[in-house]
Parts: sequence; C-alpha cells; structure tokens
Amino acid sequence: MKRGFGSDNHAGIHPRILESLSLANIEHAPSYGTDDWTEEAVQEFKKHFGNEAQVFFVFNGTAANVTALRAISRPWQSIFCSDVAHINVDECGAPEQMTGCKLIPIPSVNGKISVEALENAFIRRGDQHYSQTQVLSITQPTELGTTYSLEEMKALVSWAKCKKLMVHIDGSRLANAAYHLGVGFKAFTTDLGADVISFGGTKNGLLMGEVVIFLNKDLAQDFKYVRKQSGQLPSKSRFIACQFTTYLKNDLWKDIAKNSLERAQELYEAVQGIPFVKLREKPQSNAVFATIPQAWVKPLREKYFFYVWDEKTFECRWMTSWDTTSEDVQGFAQALKELAR
Amino acid sequence: MKRGFGSDNHAGIHPRILESLSLANIEHAPSYGTDDWTEEAVQEFKKHFGNEAQVFFVFNGTAANVTALRAISRPWQSIFCSDVAHINVDECGAPEQMTGCKLIPIPSVNGKISVEALENAFIRRGDQHYSQTQVLSITQPTELGTTYSLEEMKALVSWAKCKKLMVHIDGSRLANAAYHLGVGFKAFTTDLGADVISFGGTKNGLLMGEVVIFLNKDLAQDFKYVRKQSGQLPSKSRFIACQFTTYLKNDLWKDIAKNSLERAQELYEAVQGIPFVKLREKPQSNAVFATIPQAWVKPLREKYFFYVWDEKTFECRWMTSWDTTSEDVQGFAQALKELAR
Amino acid sequence: MKRGFGSDNHAGIHPRILESLSLANIEHAPSYGTDDWTEEAVQEFKKHFGNEAQVFFVFNGTAANVTALRAISRPWQSIFCSDVAHINVDECGAPEQMTGCKLIPIPSVNGKISVEALENAFIRRGDQHYSQTQVLSITQPTELGTTYSLEEMKALVSWAKCKKLMVHIDGSRLANAAYHLGVGFKAFTTDLGADVISFGGTKNGLLMGEVVIFLNKDLAQDFKYVRKQSGQLPSKSRFIACQFTTYLKNDLWKDIAKNSLERAQELYEAVQGIPFVKLREKPQSNAVFATIPQAWVKPLREKYFFYVWDEKTFECRWMTSWDTTSEDVQGFAQALKELAR
Amino acid sequence: MKRGFGSDNHAGIHPRILESLSLANIEHAPSYGTDDWTEEAVQEFKKHFGNEAQVFFVFNGTAANVTALRAISRPWQSIFCSDVAHINVDECGAPEQMTGCKLIPIPSVNGKISVEALENAFIRRGDQHYSQTQVLSITQPTELGTTYSLEEMKALVSWAKCKKLMVHIDGSRLANAAYHLGVGFKAFTTDLGADVISFGGTKNGLLMGEVVIFLNKDLAQDFKYVRKQSGQLPSKSRFIACQFTTYLKNDLWKDIAKNSLERAQELYEAVQGIPFVKLREKPQSNAVFATIPQAWVKPLREKYFFYVWDEKTFECRWMTSWDTTSEDVQGFAQALKELAR
Repeated sequence: MKRGFGSDNHAGIHPRILESLSLANIEHAPSYGTDDWTEEAVQEFKKHFGNEAQVFFVFNGTAANVTALRAISRPWQSIFCSDVAHINVDECGAPEQMTGCKLIPIPSVNGKISVEALENAFIRRGDQHYSQTQVLSITQPTELGTTYSLEEMKALVSWAKCKKLMVHIDGSRLANAAYHLGVGFKAFTTDLGADVISFGGTKNGLLMGEVVIFLNKDLAQDFKYVRKQSGQLPSKSRFIACQFTTYLKNDLWKDIAKNSLERAQELYEAVQGIPFVKLREKPQSNAVFATIPQAWVKPLREKYFFYVWDEKTFECRWMTSWDTTSEDVQGFAQALKELAR
Repeated sequence: MKRGFGSDNHAGIHPRILESLSLANIEHAPSYGTDDWTEEAVQEFKKHFGNEAQVFFVFNGTAANVTALRAISRPWQSIFCSDVAHINVDECGAPEQMTGCKLIPIPSVNGKISVEALENAFIRRGDQHYSQTQVLSITQPTELGTTYSLEEMKALVSWAKCKKLMVHIDGSRLANAAYHLGVGFKAFTTDLGADVISFGGTKNGLLMGEVVIFLNKDLAQDFKYVRKQSGQLPSKSRFIACQFTTYLKNDLWKDIAKNSLERAQELYEAVQGIPFVKLREKPQSNAVFATIPQAWVKPLREKYFFYVWDEKTFECRWMTSWDTTSEDVQGFAQALKELAR
Repeated sequence: MKRGFGSDNHAGIHPRILESLSLANIEHAPSYGTDDWTEEAVQEFKKHFGNEAQVFFVFNGTAANVTALRAISRPWQSIFCSDVAHINVDECGAPEQMTGCKLIPIPSVNGKISVEALENAFIRRGDQHYSQTQVLSITQPTELGTTYSLEEMKALVSWAKCKKLMVHIDGSRLANAAYHLGVGFKAFTTDLGADVISFGGTKNGLLMGEVVIFLNKDLAQDFKYVRKQSGQLPSKSRFIACQFTTYLKNDLWKDIAKNSLERAQELYEAVQGIPFVKLREKPQSNAVFATIPQAWVKPLREKYFFYVWDEKTFECRWMTSWDTTSEDVQGFAQALKELAR
Repeated sequence: MKRGFGSDNHAGIHPRILESLSLANIEHAPSYGTDDWTEEAVQEFKKHFGNEAQVFFVFNGTAANVTALRAISRPWQSIFCSDVAHINVDECGAPEQMTGCKLIPIPSVNGKISVEALENAFIRRGDQHYSQTQVLSITQPTELGTTYSLEEMKALVSWAKCKKLMVHIDGSRLANAAYHLGVGFKAFTTDLGADVISFGGTKNGLLMGEVVIFLNKDLAQDFKYVRKQSGQLPSKSRFIACQFTTYLKNDLWKDIAKNSLERAQELYEAVQGIPFVKLREKPQSNAVFATIPQAWVKPLREKYFFYVWDEKTFECRWMTSWDTTSEDVQGFAQALKELAR
C-alpha cells in the first residue's frame, strides 16, 4: 500500500521499538505479567504518572477503554462521553455489552464537551428508573484533532469530582496531548484527580499494545480478574512491556508526538488557501480535518490514502504519524493544488 | 529467567517468525484486516483447512475460545466441555460472562471425554427451565498432554452432529495434535464436520496471535462484529498475519511441533524409572505429567522452572516448547536423579 | 392516598378483572403456562392479532420490552427508538444490559419519530466498528400522549421492512391507540408487518401482567428460554392469563380505553383557557401535558397527585385511567381555576 | 385439572390472601413501592428478620435469586451451590447470564452440601485465571425435601464467613424450614450472619410474589437499581405487599407450613411398606421422594398428577401444599396400594 494519511495505525513499527522485541527475545520469561520486562515498564510508567499508578497491559484500544470502564462502574450506571467519542461510535457497542452500562452522548463542539453540556445531562439522581451516571469519559486529544487545554481539563475533572463521578481518560494518543500542551503526562491526569487512563501505544509506533493505568490504587484491586475475564491478559507479556519501556525511555514518545504534530501542522499550512478546501481549526494533535469537493476524493485517494470522515459533507480526515515526512506532506498538498486548478 | 519447563508460553519468538515482523514493517498498510499480509495468511489457512474456511485473527487463546463460542451460541444454551477444559477452569469465567451460556463440565479421564459421558449429560431437551445444550467443545490436544485419536475425534464429532450440536475445537496447540496423529489438520477437523476452531499461535513460537477458523461458512457471517465488540480486532493486523503465514509455510508449524513432542517424549523416557517419580502415560503432546515428592519441588524449581499442577498430590506439569533442547531435558533428568538418591 | 392523575398504574384492579382471579382460584392447575386459562387467553389474543400470533405472559413492561428485544437482536446490533422512549430513559439501562445492544435515540417531536429522522440515523451498514441497526422500536401510543396515525405507522414499519429491520411495538397502552384510531389491533400491527409487541395490561386495569406477542411465528421459537432466563416465567400462570381473557372478552379493553381517553379529553377541554396553563395538543391517549406556574405545583398536588414531567420547565403530566370520573376531572379543573385567580 | 401432588405452585391462592387483594383494591396508591401497603409489609418482615432487614419485592423465585446474587457479586467471581440447587439446574442459566459469574456445583447428599465438600472446592485464591469464589448459596429447605438443622446451617455460614464469602439463602419455602426446625426465621438466618435471602411467597399460597431480604443493610444500597434493571420492579406494588402482610400476620405462614409438612409426613407414612415403593428419608419439608415401578407412573398420574424427578430411575416427587387434604393423601396411598397388588 502506498503511503498516505489514512490513520496512524497504517504506519508500521518504529525501528527502535521493533528492535526492543529482538532484545527481549532471549531465553524464557514467566508469562502473564510476572516477567522482568513488565516490571521495568511499570516503573517507567510510574515516573510519568506517579508512584501510585497501577499499570496493566492489554491488547487494543477498545479493550483498554472497556476493561477500564468495567472496573469503575456497575451495569445500572451510565457513562458520559462526547457524542463523537470512540467508545460511543467506533467500538460496535463493546462498552454497553461488556459493562452493561448506558452511554450518554454529550453534544460536542470540535470534539470537545463542556461543563455546561454535562450539567444539562446530569439528571434524575436517585431515580430508580434511570441509569445513574457514574463515569465521565474524556477523550484527550479528541477524535477531531483538538486537545483540551489544561484549564479545560481541570474544569471537566473538577466538575466530575464534585459530582462524585469517576473520571476515565481515553488517551489512545495521550502523548500527542502532552506534547501539544507542553507538559508532562501527570499535569493533566494524575494531578487533576483523574481515576483511570487508556494509554495508547498502537497508534504511536508500537506493534500493538495499550495500557490501563489506574491513578487511584484502590480501583485496581480486582482489575487482574477483569482483564483476564475480558480476554485481555497477554501471555508473553514481555513483548508488550518492552515496547512501552522503549517508547517511554529517552523521550521517544516525545519524538514521535513531535513529528506527528509538526507534520499535521505543516499539512494544515500547506493546504490553507487552496480554493474549495475548507479547514477546521489548526490541528492540536495529528489530524487535519478538511472538506473538499466530492469529485476530488477519488483521484486524491489514488495518490494518498485517507478516509472520508463524513459521508454527507465530504469532510475528510488526514492523519499523520511517526513516519510521516515533509515529502509526504508537500506531495499531498501539491496533489490538492493540482485538483484545485 | 532461567530456561525451564514452565509453559510453552515462557519460550520466546521463533527466529523466523521474528524476522517476518521486520519484513512486514514497510511503508503503510491498511488496518483492521484489510491488508495484503492478512489475505496471504488467510490463503495459507485455506490450504490447511479447506476452501470454505473463514479466518479471523484475535489476540489470545481465551479470546479465540470466547468469540468462537459467542458466534455459535445464544445465552440460554449450554456448552459441554471437559471438566479440566481451559474454558472451564482457566479463563476466569470469561465464557460464561461473554456468552451468557452455562458450561456443563463433562467428567474426563486423562483429559479426554467420552461419548458415554456426553450421553449421560445430554438431558432435558425442550425443558424451558434448563439451559439447552448447543455446543460440544473439544480440546485437542487436551490439557493433560493426551491427544484424541482420529477414531475418538470422529466418535465425538459424530455424536454431536447427530444431536444437532455445534462442534468447537480448542486447538491452542492444534499443530501438536496433527503432528502426533501424523495427518493434516483437515483430517480431524473439517473432514469430520467440526464447525469452528480456536487455532493457537502464541504457544507455538509466535509473539502473539490466535485464529478463529470457521469451517462452516454461514457461521462466520456476523463474526466481524462479534470480534470487534469483544475487543479483539487487531488494528495493525499485518503483524499478526505475517507470523501465521511464516508459521504455516514451509512446514515451520511441523518443525515446531516435532521438537516440542520429541523433547517431551525424550523427557518422559529420561525420567522413567527414577524412584518416587510417578508418571502418567507417554506424552502425546508437549507435556509430561509426573508426581514427585513434595520435598523435591523447591530444589528442582531452583534449577528449572515448572508448575505444580495439583497442589494436593504434587503432580507436576513439565512442558516443552519449540526451543527446548536435549541438553535442557537431560539436565532436568539429571537433577531429578540427584534428588532421588 | 387520594385520587389523582399520577399514573394509570396508581389505579387499582378493575372489578371484573379482580373477579376473574377468584373464578380461576379453584383446585389445582399446572404451572408455567400449561394450564387451561393460559390456553384460553392465547386464543383470545389470536382473535385480535391473527392466528399466527405467539403469546407469552411476563410480569411487567420493562420485561416485555427487554425479552422481546432479546429475542430479535444480537448484542452487536443496535435498536432505534424515540429519544423519549421508555426503553431509552425509564428502564435503568435494562435494554442495554440484557440485550447487549446499543440504543440509538431518534429525535422526536411530540413523542413521535419520523422516517426522515430514521433515515438520517441509518448509517455505516457493514462497518465492523459500528453497531448494526437491527430493530426499530415504536411506542404506540407515545410517552407524550400522542398516537401515530395508521398512515404514520405504515410509513415507519414500511421503512423498517425495506431496510430489513425488525419492528417492535412498545404497546403498554396499545388499547388506547386502537380506541383512538377506531380500528382493531391488527390494523396497525400484524397487518403492517410488525414483528413483536409488548402488550400492556398493568396500566389498563389489571393487577399485573404484560404480554409479548410475536406476529412472526419463527421469531418465537426460542422465546420460552429467553423468558425463563430473564426471570419472567410466571409459575401460577393461570392468574395472569385469566385477567387477560377478561380484559379482551366482551370489549372490556375498549371500555377501559374509552373512559381513559374521554376523561383525558374532558380534562383537556376543562382546563383550556385557564390563564398561565400552556397545553400541548389534544390528547390522543390518556395523558394531558400542561405547563403551569411552578408555584401552583405544590398546592395542586396536595389535592390531586400528579408528576412534574420536566423539572426545568414545569411541564406536568396528568394521566387518566379506567377509574377516572368526571367528578375527578372537574374537581381538578376547578382547583386549577382557583389557583389562576 | 384434578388435584394432585405435582408442585406447591399447582395450588391456588389461599382464601385469606385472595381477600387481601380485594381489601387493597381501593382508590389510588402510588406505584413502585412507595405505597402504604409496602411499608406495612416491610415492617412485618422486620419483625421476623430484624430491624436491619431491607426488603424488596420481586415477581418470582428465579428473579429473587438472580437479583440477590447480582447485588453481592461481580462477574469475575463464582458462586458455590449444591449440584441440585434450583439456581444450578432449573433456571435456564439465568444466574450465569445475569450475574456473569460462574456457578460451582458442590456435590450434595440428600440435597445437602457439607463444609468438607465446600473446603475441597475452595481453591486457587488470588489466581487471576480462576473465578474467585464470592458467594455461598444455601437452599433451605433443599430441593430434596430435607432441611438443614440449626447446627448444619451454623457450620455452613460460619465456614463462609471465615472465608469472607457472602451467604445467600434460597428460601422459596423458607417457612417450611422454620416450621420444621421449630424456630423463628431469624434463628437460622440473621442470627447466623447470612447476608441475603430469597424469601418465597408463590409456593406458599400467594398469587405470586417473592422477596429479596438483605440482612446486611449496606448490601442493599444500590439494589433498587438492580431490581429495576432486571425487570423486577412491580408497579402496582400494593398488590404484592398486601399478600405478604397477610401471610406473615397472625401466623398464617405457620398454618400453611404446618399443613404442607404434616400432609407430606402423612403421605410418607401412608405409603411406607407398600411393596416396590422405595422411599427416601422422612420429609423435613413438603415433598416425599419415592421410587416406584415405571409401569405405575402412567395409571397413577391419571388419578393424581405428579412429576417423575429422575427419568432414569423413576424416582418421583410428591409435593404437598397449603390446600392438600388428608383425603387427597389417603386417596393417593390407596391408588398406590391397588397398583401394588
């Protein structure tokens, strides 16, 4: 397949992460998370999320979200999330089926939800006929390439804590948010009082692997059973762990986020002003959203693959990744310009 | 960790399979199973299981079992399996929770169930108060290192088909069974009329990866949704697919099974006759079961790791893998002999 | 408790239905639906819904909805319903938890959904990441006291059938709809191609009891297990069945619906024109919706109980039932008039 | 249907309980458990089970068991119960489906389980691969007409408490146990430290209705949501409540239990010594178990209905109820004697 802007999971494995697999492939290691590589990775995570952090590897993003949510909810409760949240529209009902909870989609603007919108939806407390809200799930960065500012995160988490709700962060690209905000991971997670994070690896240069990180230790107590029962306990755990150690060490996570964001912004600037191309705001993560004429989609996709995000308006999503080059970006912009002639 | 006989998932990645990851790590590939590597692997599987076979990659063995069972059952039904089956005692209730079904454990002898025992359990058809049996799940080879003969498999599958039940085969080590029986995979699966297989990779030299193979095409119709909803859809699917292609091509699967079985049999022979060591029958897969004096466990495990299978009788499981050497085996036997003095 | 307009389930048991319990209370009867009373009731239902109708008694409305939906869906599918549907906002997430499905709320106007709104929501067919719509659930009459016309019902059901969806009708007050439309039950259910109905008894003068009626025989095949597994198989079934026989025979259902609707319309007319009372449209079932000044709620409720429907606008729901009298209605209107002075 | 010994749910409604329905059928009452009748019934239950008791009405026995179990378990846990327990073999997998838990059947003798058998099954604590036992469910009296003595109950509950397990009592005929033991309900429930009871009404002369009683107040905190989500919240709750008030007041429960047990014992004695009739031990509840020649079943059932308990041995269950008369008993014994000639 040709290179493109389809998704950050179209990119392969970062060479240093691939190398870590070879380095871990020695002799025997105990399975199911009791190996030294897992311990090393856990220590790395604690450096970034605090010493209380409880770290569990799972296979993919849906699983990270769903197992995290299972751990902090009961089936008669509900989960607030953005109406465009991955858990709401891209996981084939896994959250409902595996937690038993109801998802309450909160209207979003540019992928972001507001305290005001949450307040409107927070109703019927104590009413036995109505699913009782238990979790606020925040996607950071959002599905639309925006990133909540520190202030916005603080407002959302504070609201939830004030209502005695649990806070889950869907962070399949959490590193991008940290890079964009210019702060460490703790500043907009642990320090604000969030409870559990789905921390992504696959979309950031790993072969595969995601992490459920409990920032509140008590919540992790039974999680090993939740994970196992959900079919998410990796046996050869060293091979997920070693990837994350490499990813976190020596700021590799930051290098990857940096390239992803810079290429997205480069793309944004390169296509700005092209006639008939209508852009959303400047990317705060690794995605550019642009509406283009329907007739352009086919010829453009023949050169560079990407997805049409909205089949009615022909808004498209152009996504960069750790391996996107300036050459890719300029080539794509050039192709657009030719179509615009 | 030192080498040992703990489990075939303590071993690492077979070098040729590790190499396949590097080879697949080029440019971009579409995700979620639409890549060329996936297509190639599917074609390899069809060679082994027939052209009708529908092939789906998932992450681990519990997931393969549970998603396969979800696809062929409804929650008010029951699943027959051996009382020592992995789905019954080693998956933390995942089958019950994710299918809603009741598991009916069938008494086993040396890990095997018989038509007679099944017949005894097959009761109350049409009785609305009783979970209606829908699936027979057969583990091949069994958890106790035995392998059903072709005749035994035929008897079990025929019985199930005669009762209009679905047949699931838990084959996390299916290659070992094929090698032991000296036949191709089809002979004891597709050709007998089995419906769906959990085909294992992780325990046979892969980094990770299992496969759900529907032999009956109709049953696979909605499986893509089942898999996604169960949190088992790999995004960078090429990296699971490429491993299986390598595993199936050029008889690598057979080489791995051969070494595993031959080392297990070598171990069996090497420890036979050692005083106080009570062996089960000769291994038909890659595990030797032996009861040893309790006092030996600790010193022996300091040299070679293994699991005590039964905490009351001190029956132990010694498991070989693709990377077990004759040196490992003889060293272990030697250690036992020294303890027996 | 004083009489009021709180809900049709605040009323007691219709005397003829209460009497039927005494008449059925003779000697022994087989349990779990195998008694003569059940058979008689089933035959009555067939007269109203057609000979193919498959009839199952359950305990309450949530159960009727949820067991019906379980029978016609799989967990990776979704269910379309009005955003104010009982299954969406008044069943504490039972539909999600017991079916595993996602509910997709369709924007409604006066409780009704339109084909246009359905069309907008019918997206991403075949996309493994998205719950596949399988059921259209129509509430008839709606939660807001409106009733779909025959034409409207035909349009909704035809749309669903054209999309190969199942059609469920939540008819906890179905008799009111039939009475309002002036047709038999079949005309807007069986004859249009609906698949399964939740047919209400409790809100229409029974002690308790609801019915799941499959109009499509094949769908009922496994329902006895669904019902039992859902905790909804009545043991002394004769005592639910006899109530329904009485309800359906000699047009008692029609008498009850007639009084309920006529009193609602009488109430509507009696309060029309009272200053500060803002009415929705004329009731097409047994509920009047009216917005009144917040200050009136307390004194009015001291005389006649009712519920505030919207805690923000102070829209109230005034509900009539089989036992509402003109005296009740006029007394209530009088109380309002006094507040309006 | 002729009178017989089929089940205590073949009998009708006790006249005083039927009368209570008429008495409660006045004016309006708030629904969903907020009425005065419910409050009165709750107070009656507190007299019998202690002031801490939290009382919730549900529709049937499966529901009482399953909602109680949902409240005290999480899906990755397991529930110990007798191998002949109703929850294990007569609820179509409802416990597994609705709790997500695994049921571990404990071998029973005459319907009873022992501490020794429990001890054997209590394994693999802390092992993430294995469902962690959380609940001991005791059926009192048992499905085989035996009743645990006070000492036996104390032993079972103490064992469970010592293992930090929850104790559930399936008491669909709890009154029979109390009557047989000659003590109040508290003595073998609350006083021993049991946590939650399924208290039966339907099999003891009610139209329908069962109760979930939490003896440990904290466990009831979220139960209103569990009940609603499980489809078990009665709307016209006064009509279940009034039955239980009548049942508990003036020792009606005791009268009903007395007749049931005395008739069962009368039957036991009347058939003792009849050739070819092999009896289990003397009934300690309202069931006589007897093996008779297969050829007798048909002619006997033509006179008095009953169930064959074991289709292989032709052991039969003859069950008495509140309305069984000595005439019924002697007539049945006579019929047997005639067959024995």
